[in-house]
Order: sequence, then structure tokens, then C-alpha cells
Amino acid sequence: MENFKFNAYTEILFGRDQIDNLPKSLAVYGKNVLLTYGGGSIKKNGIYTKVMDLLKGFNVVELAGIEPNPKIESVREGVRLCREHQIDVILAVGGGSTIDCSKVIGAAYYYEGDAWDIVTTPSLIDKVLPIITILTIAATGSEMNKNAVITNMQTNEKLGTASTNMIPQTSILNPEYMFTLPAIQTAAGTADIMSHVLENYFQKTEGAFVQDKISEGLLKTCIKYCPIAIKEPDNYEARANLMWASSLALNGLCGCGKGGSWTCHPIEHELSAYYDITHGVGLAIITPSWMRYILSDQTVDKFVEYAVNVWGLSPMEDKFKLANQAINKTEEFFISCGIPSTLTELGIDASKFDFMAEKAVKFGYLKYAYVGLEPADVRTILENCL
Amino acid sequence: MENFKFNAYTEILFGRDQIDNLPKSLAVYGKNVLLTYGGGSIKKNGIYTKVMDLLKGFNVVELAGIEPNPKIESVREGVRLCREHQIDVILAVGGGSTIDCSKVIGAAYYYEGDAWDIVTTPSLIDKVLPIITILTIAATGSEMNKNAVITNMQTNEKLGTASTNMIPQTSILNPEYMFTLPAIQTAAGTADIMSHVLENYFQKTEGAFVQDKISEGLLKTCIKYCPIAIKEPDNYEARANLMWASSLALNGLCGCGKGGSWTCHPIEHELSAYYDITHGVGLAIITPSWMRYILSDQTVDKFVEYAVNVWGLSPMEDKFKLANQAINKTEEFFISCGIPSTLTELGIDASKFDFMAEKAVKFGYLKYAYVGLEPADVRTILENCL
Repeated sequence: MENFKFNAYTEILFGRDQIDNLPKSLAVYGKNVLLTYGGGSIKKNGIYTKVMDLLKGFNVVELAGIEPNPKIESVREGVRLCREHQIDVILAVGGGSTIDCSKVIGAAYYYEGDAWDIVTTPSLIDKVLPIITILTIAATGSEMNKNAVITNMQTNEKLGTASTNMIPQTSILNPEYMFTLPAIQTAAGTADIMSHVLENYFQKTEGAFVQDKISEGLLKTCIKYCPIAIKEPDNYEARANLMWASSLALNGLCGCGKGGSWTCHPIEHELSAYYDITHGVGLAIITPSWMRYILSDQTVDKFVEYAVNVWGLSPMEDKFKLANQAINKTEEFFISCGIPSTLTELGIDASKFDFMAEKAVKFGYLKYAYVGLEPADVRTILENCL
Repeated sequence: MENFKFNAYTEILFGRDQIDNLPKSLAVYGKNVLLTYGGGSIKKNGIYTKVMDLLKGFNVVELAGIEPNPKIESVREGVRLCREHQIDVILAVGGGSTIDCSKVIGAAYYYEGDAWDIVTTPSLIDKVLPIITILTIAATGSEMNKNAVITNMQTNEKLGTASTNMIPQTSILNPEYMFTLPAIQTAAGTADIMSHVLENYFQKTEGAFVQDKISEGLLKTCIKYCPIAIKEPDNYEARANLMWASSLALNGLCGCGKGGSWTCHPIEHELSAYYDITHGVGLAIITPSWMRYILSDQTVDKFVEYAVNVWGLSPMEDKFKLANQAINKTEEFFISCGIPSTLTELGIDASKFDFMAEKAVKFGYLKYAYVGLEPADVRTILENCL
């Protein structure tokens, strides 16, 4: 186990009616609230009305229409609003995109230069406006961590930034808010959760047993409950377990004490940056291709662990057979959840793979991944996704 | 899953040499430090010297000799020192006893009445002096939670109190600090960790799958690494996994979303209050007896889960046989770690069982436990420990 710093200080208010604590949580920071949200689903499912009702007595400024892959333009507009209205606290209602955008707004508010600088150079982040979130999809874990991913379509860059000061102060997680989520979003969100866990599970660090057991538990949670949530969208137990798994998958629990770069995320970020596809869908397509590519004498034992402890497969003499069974199980699981299994189905061809591979390796530091990758490796992984 | 609030805001600095961050962590709060510790083992293993070296430039006041079951008198003395020296921050170096005592000192500092009041009535706790800990034993999880247990030998009471404001700000966890720990303390600490998990694992709440998977992972960690740590006291991997498991076992992860009172802890607290025995030893003796007593048609399925998912036993038709195998495994594990398996071995007889049973039920709210218990039930559980 490597040295680590763990700090996931977000206060989680989990369950039905926890939203009633919202005014109290906000009032700690002030009266002027920037309310951020996405495409307007919160207006259809009643959350918007409920929030506005609770915010009587606060001065609310709205930033609506934050994109699924949030754009730097939205950040800039948010910063403008915060400065114009002397905002005290940001209330992000939505999923990872809305929360990520809000975090960078909160950080850029205190930064004099252009907001894109603090995306490319996280060390420029200092103070951050307090962030409170109301989560509406289990996916990115942004509700309980320091990360944010922002897209710049001008430069075709989708980059992650991070700061401990961007961790939300309070996150309200009501599983009922996911009852109206379309099946594909439930599936894509779950693929995202699983990918966060897998990126940490498959690393070179040995002896991080606690982290790996937690990881296996979260993966089993996804495997058990995603199909239930798709079949019965208002199954509280399924939504609750997926929601809590999303927060724990990327709040540091699975990754602390383990080193190395991630793999599928940087590759997927290139796909999203060029084609604006759903992040979790991209991850679900890339993951099995990546697993097959890196399976070798050096990695097969970890895949055997994965097969037995996550998928419940019986140990057998032929380790590679077992490993491949687990990879097939992973792929079949995503397909069974209704996620496309090839990039071709998304209308993506190989024309930009060379650029993407170069950039993924560069921005993702893929040389330091579980299995170090060069651009040619990434290109092959992508080609195998067609 | 029930509604819950989760907040484990402690900054964890984990690993070798993390102590070098101590001056920076303390300086946030001020110059006047109350250094608390126990019987002096930190003077033998070099931690004391290292700490004093790092604290040059701070005004350090010492409270030494905090007892294994910390007494209310130590709390009162700590409060006196804090007031006399205008202490800004408490630095607790030790295990759960030192940290628990420090938490209540920090809380009682701001309370005008007698410190025992805030133990019996946790709602009286408001502000708390900031607490920084350097952990030297994996056991109570106090380094990352809101709980503290204090003993009053005058009234033969050992009671828990709690407040979110008592959660340590920063905890430094260096597995190397456990290299010199005697085998029996390693074992007793592990029994404590396992009991924290089991108290939450065996509850009536259904559908808290994430929590149960994390619980199973932490139990497997204890089962794997405690024997290694006893055999090879300076095995870093074993110490690291036990240390991190101790923090996660009682920071809310296993218990959030699950309801009901605990059982073994309130019963053990009575033993410690009367006989001043090691907490973890008492728990290890009580746990198998409690398990056998509550095994029934209503609970057998949970024991089957425990048998298969924690002990790796093969599913079989006879559920009770499987359940009993798991209970036997639990008992044998504690014995194999060198923990006495009966109260008789500790010189405890049945003479005070009636009083203890009455008090455990009353103070532990045992009516609301996984299987609700009356004093007669507790008496039988204790008799079966003789």
C-alpha cells in the first residue's frame, strides 16, 4: 500500500425528504445562491419546484442548460453571474456535469485569469465558493469528491481538474430522484461507476487489500442493482445502492494507497471531446477492449481475482480462460443493460484515432498506467471497439 | 436502506513519514498544544521524541498516563490544563483511549458544568477544541469518528458519548507505529474492529447491500492480516491493512443506512466498568456467545451470508449447520490470535451478572438490538462465557 491522503469531507444527507434540510445547509454560507442545472429534467420531475419553494427568502440566480459534457463557456457564464450577484454559495442540482461545472465556477470566481487556465493547471486553484449538491443520477461521484471534467470544443479538449477545496460541503442524495431516469442513463451511469472502480482495481500497487475488497463490493453492487433499476425504475433499494455506490466509487476509498494513471477515462475523454458522446457509454465500450488488450502473464492473476471475487466464477486451472470469461461477462453485462457495444453504432470511425491516441497518452500519462500504453496501443484498443 | 447522514471529515495522512506534516497541521489552529498520551509506550518506541522534535516552536503542555479505559478524572484534568494554558488544539498520540479522552476534554472545555454531564448527555456538546491524532493501534476507529467512551469508576459506568464536532480534524496513520505492539494488543484491537463491523452487519435493516459488502471486506481484511501481524509484527502490509480497516469500520461506512442498537458493546462496557478488562478481549469472548444465543429461524439467513461471504464456507442445505460453522470459525479465530475464550480465564465470575445485565439493557437500549434482549437474555449470554 502506498502513502496517501484521504479527505472526503462532504456531509451526505441520504434518503427521502432530506431536501428539507436544504435551507439550513445553504444559510450557513449566505443568502445569495447560484442555482445551476442542466437540460431541464428537474422541471419535469418536480425537483425544481420543490427547490424553489424551499429557497423562498434566498436570492436565487439561475444558470440553466449546463451540457452533458459541460463546456468552458458555461463556466465563464457562471463566473460572470457569481460576480454580478455577489453569490455566496452554489447549489448544483443534477448529475456530474452540473456539479463539475459548478465546482469550476466556484474556483474560477476567485481566479483573475480565464477559467480554462484552472482546468489545464489545477495548481492555480485556491479558494472555492462553497458547493451544495442535489444529486439526480448515480454516476460520476462528483457529489463527494474534488474532481471536475470540463470540455473545450474550440481546442477539442476534455480535461480533468481537481482541488480539495472543490469538494462539495453538503450533498443531498434522494434515491427517489432517479425514479424518472431513462434506462440508458441508468446503464451509462452504472458503467461510469464501474469504470471508476476498475481503473483503481487494476493497478500495479500490491497489498492494498482493504481498497480491493471495497472495490469488489461496489462492483457487485452495480452488477446486482443496475438490471433491477432498469426493469423497475422506482425500486428504491436498487436506486439507493447505486446512488451510494456512485459516491463511494470515486471519493478516494478505492483509489487511496494505490498509484498509477487511469486508462479508459483518458481514452474516453478523447472520444467525448470529438464526438460529444455519453461518457459512460464510451467507457462501457472501451473497457472490455482494454481488458483484452492488456491481458498477459503479468496481469492474468489480477483478472483471476476479478473473475472469482466480482463475477463469482469458479477457480479453474486455465487462468487465461477464467480471465477471458470475466472480460466476456463484463462486456455482456453492459450489453444486457442496453449500452451499445461498438463505436460504429455511435457513428464513430477510425478517422481521428491517431490524434486521439496521441492526446490520450499525453494528457492521461498513459505511460504510467497499470499496463503502460503508447499511442499505437491506444489506437489498437480503439480499433477493436469498431 | 434507511435515511442517514454521513460525515467523516477527518483528513487522513496515511503512511510512512506522514508525521512530518504535523507542524503544518497543528499550526492552522494555534501555538498552544495539549499533548495527550497513555502509559508511556510512545517514549519507548521513539514516537514521543519525534513528536517533541517536530513541536519545537509550539507551547506544549502534557497530559500523560491516560488509562486504557479512560477515566473521567483524566478528562477533568485535561480540561483544567486547557483552561490554564489557553490551549488551541489537542494532539492525541495513542489509541482509542487517548483519543476518546481527548475528544471529551475538547468538548468539556467549552462546557461550564462537570465533564461527566456531556458523557451522560451528548446533546450538551456544542463547540469542541480541534483534535489531531497520531494513531498507534488499530482498534477503536476513534481517529475518524465522533464517538468517545469514558469510564466513571465511582458509579461503575462506562458510557459512550458522541458529537460530529468531536471528529478529529486530522489523523496521522503510520503503520510502522504498530510494529512494537504486543501480540495480545494486536489481537484485541482486531477483535474490536471486527465487533464494530459485526454490530452493524447483524441488524434488521434490509437492502443496505453496499454497507454489507464493505463490512464483509473489512472482516476479511481482519481475518487475513491479524495472524500475519502477530507472526511478523513488522509486516507493513498487514499493519497497513489493519490500520485502515480500523478507521473504516467505525467511521459510518458500515453502519450508515442501518438502524438498531448494538449488542456486544453495551454488554462488554459493563464488564470493563466493573473489572477494567481489555475492551477487545471482552468483545471477543462475548461475540460467539451472543451469536449462538440469537441464532434462530429469523436470523439464520444472515448467518448463512456471514458464513459464505466472510468465512468462505460452501453453501449447504442445512442452514443451521452452516451458521454454527461460521460461529465456531469466529470463536476459533479469536482463540488462534491468543485471546482468552472465557470470562473465567479473566477471573470474572457470575456474581455481578445481574447488575450488569440490567445496566447493559438500560444503557444499551438492547430492546432495539438486532434481536431484542431483556436482562435475563444478557445474563444467559454472560453465563455462557464462563
